[in-house]
Amino acid sequence: MGTVSKKDKNIGIVETKYFTFAGPADDLLLESGEKLGPITLAYETCGNLDAAKSNAVLIFHALSGDAHVAGYHEGDTSPGWWDDMIGPGKAFDTDKYFVICSNVIGACKGSTGPSSENPQTGRPYDLDFPIVTVKDMVNAQARLMDHLGIDRLLCVAGGSMGGMQALQWAVTYPDRVRSAIPIATAARHSPQQIAFNEVGRQAIMADPNWNGGDYYSGTPPTRGLSVARMVGHITYMSDESMAVKFGRRLREGELKEKFAPDFEVEGYLQYRGDNFVKRFDANSYLYITKALDYFDLYNGKGLEHLLRGVKARFLVVAFKSDWLYPPYQSREIVKACKLSGVDATYCELNSSYGHDAFLLETEEQEYLVKHFLASVSGGNGNEH
Amino acid sequence: MGTVSKKDKNIGIVETKYFTFAGPADDLLLESGEKLGPITLAYETCGNLDAAKSNAVLIFHALSGDAHVAGYHEGDTSPGWWDDMIGPGKAFDTDKYFVICSNVIGACKGSTGPSSENPQTGRPYDLDFPIVTVKDMVNAQARLMDHLGIDRLLCVAGGSMGGMQALQWAVTYPDRVRSAIPIATAARHSPQQIAFNEVGRQAIMADPNWNGGDYYSGTPPTRGLSVARMVGHITYMSDESMAVKFGRRLREGELKEKFAPDFEVEGYLQYRGDNFVKRFDANSYLYITKALDYFDLYNGKGLEHLLRGVKARFLVVAFKSDWLYPPYQSREIVKACKLSGVDATYCELNSSYGHDAFLLETEEQEYLVKHFLASVSGGNGNEH
Repeated sequence: MGTVSKKDKNIGIVETKYFTFAGPADDLLLESGEKLGPITLAYETCGNLDAAKSNAVLIFHALSGDAHVAGYHEGDTSPGWWDDMIGPGKAFDTDKYFVICSNVIGACKGSTGPSSENPQTGRPYDLDFPIVTVKDMVNAQARLMDHLGIDRLLCVAGGSMGGMQALQWAVTYPDRVRSAIPIATAARHSPQQIAFNEVGRQAIMADPNWNGGDYYSGTPPTRGLSVARMVGHITYMSDESMAVKFGRRLREGELKEKFAPDFEVEGYLQYRGDNFVKRFDANSYLYITKALDYFDLYNGKGLEHLLRGVKARFLVVAFKSDWLYPPYQSREIVKACKLSGVDATYCELNSSYGHDAFLLETEEQEYLVKHFLASVSGGNGNEH
Repeated sequence: MGTVSKKDKNIGIVETKYFTFAGPADDLLLESGEKLGPITLAYETCGNLDAAKSNAVLIFHALSGDAHVAGYHEGDTSPGWWDDMIGPGKAFDTDKYFVICSNVIGACKGSTGPSSENPQTGRPYDLDFPIVTVKDMVNAQARLMDHLGIDRLLCVAGGSMGGMQALQWAVTYPDRVRSAIPIATAARHSPQQIAFNEVGRQAIMADPNWNGGDYYSGTPPTRGLSVARMVGHITYMSDESMAVKFGRRLREGELKEKFAPDFEVEGYLQYRGDNFVKRFDANSYLYITKALDYFDLYNGKGLEHLLRGVKARFLVVAFKSDWLYPPYQSREIVKACKLSGVDATYCELNSSYGHDAFLLETEEQEYLVKHFLASVSGGNGNEH
């Protein structure tokens, strides 16, 4: 369970960039049939694009993530969310690869989402924002790749919802993806996964401050969003990692009132919930969890048709203690690869961190990713 | 996965009875140090107490249960919550045994709880109701047994929180318990179990109608309580049973509005939540989940001291797919038995129903319980 801090090798200061496609013909036709535009995508890059534009790696974030994947924002003390994996000599080696991460549409971290201004009204979209899917997110990212002049990606990679985007890229743009690394993810959400998301949504919508989604000029539904985040955090950890981290220890000090958090695990959940509402938009939580729930590569087809036509090579990674995206879902992806003649490597890592392992268990992931990328790009991965 | 309806063999019409201990010296000294009184317990009985008063079985309900364990209330179309297990010729054979089930203190089904009248004020207790523990519940039940003239119980049995009461009875009243059947339960709540309860409590307290617990003269916090129940229901089922029951099927008809439940599993959760708030009190949910979380037979001691002095024989039952009360927690109870020289039989059943299995998977449980009770009471269990 090694979580080595690699601050010494980070990529330094990064800045978020913004790309807007706003031309009259630039609207994105969504899966729902609706059109969305103009669209802004927030993104960050690290490393350098080579002359042949052949070393680009597109990283995708999870539900609550953003474009800030590695390095530091000016003045910040914590790095991006996957800094342990991205930098000089790291898994996604920025001495070799040009790494891009873009915030998804529907989100609230600089990309167009329900809190963005609706050009029709001059006010935030609220629930007039159309339902977006993982495929829509990916289609928007393809425009960003066009803008960056990148025709073909060396690799697409991500954990959780990021893994779904990797899968969707490989399927939707077979000629633009040389390899894919879906981590701790699924080809479709199970009813249990839908159910956990639904509880989060219901908690948000039960908050009177949600006000049918129209709260941007008033008080946001922080209590509801906090409860949603608490549910999420339980599913991100494992029974074992909670036992190790908290046990049944009580918090220090007297209880201020009946039913105030007194176990450490309760304090942790409250802390996580309280922090989340400062940085995340409740409507975005609704839209993005819905995109997760609608995600279904099967789409009524058999497993053998899932990845037909895909040209990318796959590295599929799962974690034994991940019960939110259990390994059997990753093994299904591998099976789909094999049935479609897609080259696939599978690795099930022994972490006890649960779903969070894709963020925390970076040491073994580093070896896996390094060798896989070297093999895809023609080297042997052992140069370092 | 046989859930055979045994309506033909049910015990017929039953009525809830009430026992109140209200004498000046009758107050119950709670674990918190506070005193509670007068106390009413709602209870039901089936079968007949033999002349030697040696055939009494005390059944305990789970979090949301009540005293109505078997048979029908006048005019009702559904029987009590464990009717498949209790009746003539059934697991707890009412031709042989006198079965008692009492609602716990803190609850809202006829026993004294936060919605009861506080004799000091003439108004509902609200949060002035003291914190109660599983041990307090059991101590109240002991008064009921005194009232019924039952000195020694042939068996104490229950699933989930009911299993905790069975364990507590065996520990607190070693001379009054001949055998115990804890099912799908734990000797203490893990941080994950605490966390799920805490999310439910936070959902309730986030509802403005909760109003600090003072809502009995106004609108109750139904939205919050409904969300709490939804979380609960996810944990009661297994990933597999949800996949079998709902898959990714959508509900029929057009969506009335964005983010209305459209998957069947979402509709199910909403239905369960909506129904629950009609029959359960939000404050009781807070008090009883807290009693679960505080439950800790270890109490800082080693496993070998857990059941020291216990004289009951144990039948411990767990279900492989139960991830809320995973089998390892039942195996810990068995280990504690063995380490203390307590006679214990363990059976891990292969159900896919998850935690709900203790209510649904009655066929195999029937055999287990029948033979165990026959052995405890001196017969061979095969008379039927």
